[in-house]
Amino acid sequence: MLTVKELGINAKKASRVLSVAKAEKNEALKNISAALIENAEYIIKQNNIDIENGRINGLSDAMIDRLRLDLDRIKGIACGVDEIIAMPDPVGKVISGNKLSNGLDISKVTVPLGVIGIIFESRPNVTADAAALCLKAGNCVILRGGKEAINSNKAIVKVMRDAIAKAGLPSDCINLVEDTTRASSIELMGLTEYLDVLIPRGGAGLIRAVVENAKVPVIETGVGNCHAFVDESADIDMASSIVFNAKTSRVSVCNALETLLVHEKIADKALPAIYDRLKEKNVEIRGCEKTVAILGDNAKLSTDEDYATEFLDYILAVKVVSSLDDAIDHIAKYSSGHSEVIITENYKNAESFLNRVDSSAVYVNASTRFTDGGQFGLGAEIGISTQKLHARGPMGLENLVSTKYIIRGDGQVR
Amino acid sequence: MLTVKELGINAKKASRVLSVAKAEKNEALKNISAALIENAEYIIKQNNIDIENGRINGLSDAMIDRLRLDLDRIKGIACGVDEIIAMPDPVGKVISGNKLSNGLDISKVTVPLGVIGIIFESRPNVTADAAALCLKAGNCVILRGGKEAINSNKAIVKVMRDAIAKAGLPSDCINLVEDTTRASSIELMGLTEYLDVLIPRGGAGLIRAVVENAKVPVIETGVGNCHAFVDESADIDMASSIVFNAKTSRVSVCNALETLLVHEKIADKALPAIYDRLKEKNVEIRGCEKTVAILGDNAKLSTDEDYATEFLDYILAVKVVSSLDDAIDHIAKYSSGHSEVIITENYKNAESFLNRVDSSAVYVNASTRFTDGGQFGLGAEIGISTQKLHARGPMGLENLVSTKYIIRGDGQVR
Repeated sequence: MLTVKELGINAKKASRVLSVAKAEKNEALKNISAALIENAEYIIKQNNIDIENGRINGLSDAMIDRLRLDLDRIKGIACGVDEIIAMPDPVGKVISGNKLSNGLDISKVTVPLGVIGIIFESRPNVTADAAALCLKAGNCVILRGGKEAINSNKAIVKVMRDAIAKAGLPSDCINLVEDTTRASSIELMGLTEYLDVLIPRGGAGLIRAVVENAKVPVIETGVGNCHAFVDESADIDMASSIVFNAKTSRVSVCNALETLLVHEKIADKALPAIYDRLKEKNVEIRGCEKTVAILGDNAKLSTDEDYATEFLDYILAVKVVSSLDDAIDHIAKYSSGHSEVIITENYKNAESFLNRVDSSAVYVNASTRFTDGGQFGLGAEIGISTQKLHARGPMGLENLVSTKYIIRGDGQVR
Repeated sequence: MLTVKELGINAKKASRVLSVAKAEKNEALKNISAALIENAEYIIKQNNIDIENGRINGLSDAMIDRLRLDLDRIKGIACGVDEIIAMPDPVGKVISGNKLSNGLDISKVTVPLGVIGIIFESRPNVTADAAALCLKAGNCVILRGGKEAINSNKAIVKVMRDAIAKAGLPSDCINLVEDTTRASSIELMGLTEYLDVLIPRGGAGLIRAVVENAKVPVIETGVGNCHAFVDESADIDMASSIVFNAKTSRVSVCNALETLLVHEKIADKALPAIYDRLKEKNVEIRGCEKTVAILGDNAKLSTDEDYATEFLDYILAVKVVSSLDDAIDHIAKYSSGHSEVIITENYKNAESFLNRVDSSAVYVNASTRFTDGGQFGLGAEIGISTQKLHARGPMGLENLVSTKYIIRGDGQVR
């Protein structure tokens, strides 16, 4: 078992080859896609060990389901790789360029980031998705998955490493930290000499731990305390439909709605109508006093903490507010900066909300569930950035690169 | 004296006003430029206290000179502000946009980063430069300068705060940490709730301390261990001229040359010619055995540490290498990723060097001293990023923003 530092050294070395590769990258990805299917039986066998261990260790059915790989899921992963193959290479693009008056020819071009560390939890499909995206953008990757999926991850990484070697690229382009103790995770977060970026993928606890401990530059992803504000002028049918969709179409995802804010002048009509839809899915309402006054027994009284919580469940925090400003203040205080929507027919309020709400995606009259690389037309994503440096919102291939300046001269001095 | 946290709260609050300001920003900058001149006498008086204290505390003449503000230098700072006024506002630019098949209208627009922390050393001109750049890009700033310049910084910040208030913007757009103990610096590095980015400006020690300790996202700037490689086919006159310029035109800056690599097939001729130029400025040569064999008493034997050192002085590390690959390997091992140049007449080697050297600026046949926002035509810069996330190379106004997605719908759900 290689140490984290050894993996770093190997990845950095491989990066010098991968960063200048072109056609070999898609060839390697084609090999990976084919090899995942060819070796599906082996992968499933190793996955079964994880499932068995998970049962013994008392994982919930939902966790076991996330962990499970079957032929269909492996085909899905291979399909994801095929989609990445079809996308344009993000490396080597000239962003801008100029001939200066002294004759220097200067261009700014995209280059790979280098070596990317990814710390994630139990879903083994992340292993292949993330590695394939990184590879396409010319980046080596060091994966550190959860211990629940270690046998699955080892199998997938072995298959991928063999596949890329066949395309003439170093198998060290893809590396797995096999030590799943906390120590290996901490070591990875401090590997500044070899890692260019660290991307945590998982729940709020994991993200916080990485931000607190990492010395390597981090891209925060995926915590979504999303808000909808139903303005005084909202179309109530539209509001009900958007809130219902954003809250219930998939509760476990980061772009799901967590808090509903309703203008006091429409609350009497809007709240019962919205609740009528939500009750189809037994959504629990935790509301302010005014909400409870309107919805009666159908709402519990909320606490301050409810407004700060990403429930990822059939629970919705609700607050009646007295103005657009109130709504924006509430969002500024509690939001994680992921996605927010105003439902309104008022042009000025719509524009004001779009301008003043400081989140990665701000909507008028549409479900927050659209915040997604695929939905935005960006293709596969490595995560949804909720920070402001480098990338914000869905992070696709085009965000997995850096730039450099290339300057061609004929002897210029300053 | 406000605590760092109180400054954070104030800046975050002011940021909600500044982030949506447009014309007020230039108005505030015009007021700042005028106020710096009007209050020059007051600023110089406060600066004199710092100079006096510096003398008492035994600062070197060079340090005292960096610290000093006189009317000409203050006019220079005001001029810098005027240049920023003339530049286009980087906020509100539509980067990309699309109408999706479901009718959603989606645009990616530039927005301010929010609140920027800047930790810097003794030069008080940084105070005004950095604050003005941040303001133009809609960002509030928390400045934490060195204790040597505290009286100058207080005076400059007071003048700037008064000037922006007159333009109707909150004076809390610009904030100074008056506590110059190490504790305030550490507190600023951990202020994740209020700070969006932290930019250290200073020597290698400061940068390292910030990278090691910060929980806030950091942009590393300014450490430049820059290399020149004189290839077998180089024009020796051109090589001498570029090396002389890059090493000696200003030794204290990050784009100055620190290591010279020379192809063994040209070393016999090139090294004496280059040395002939360098001796005009008494440059000390620390070379490998082959260098010493060629230059004799004019070179000392180098140590491994010399190759890793940013001298910022009239010292040059030299190594004779056997090939382009050798040179690129040496650079990969020792470079800080700032600026490197190949001097060559060989097309293939030029392109190979440009592609394979992983630094923020890679040159053929020109001095590394051009790596500078002004020289690149980007205008004033806040620093030169030597990391790969968000910005790389000279960081001007266009890198002091983030983006957000704005989505206009008419009831779309997923």
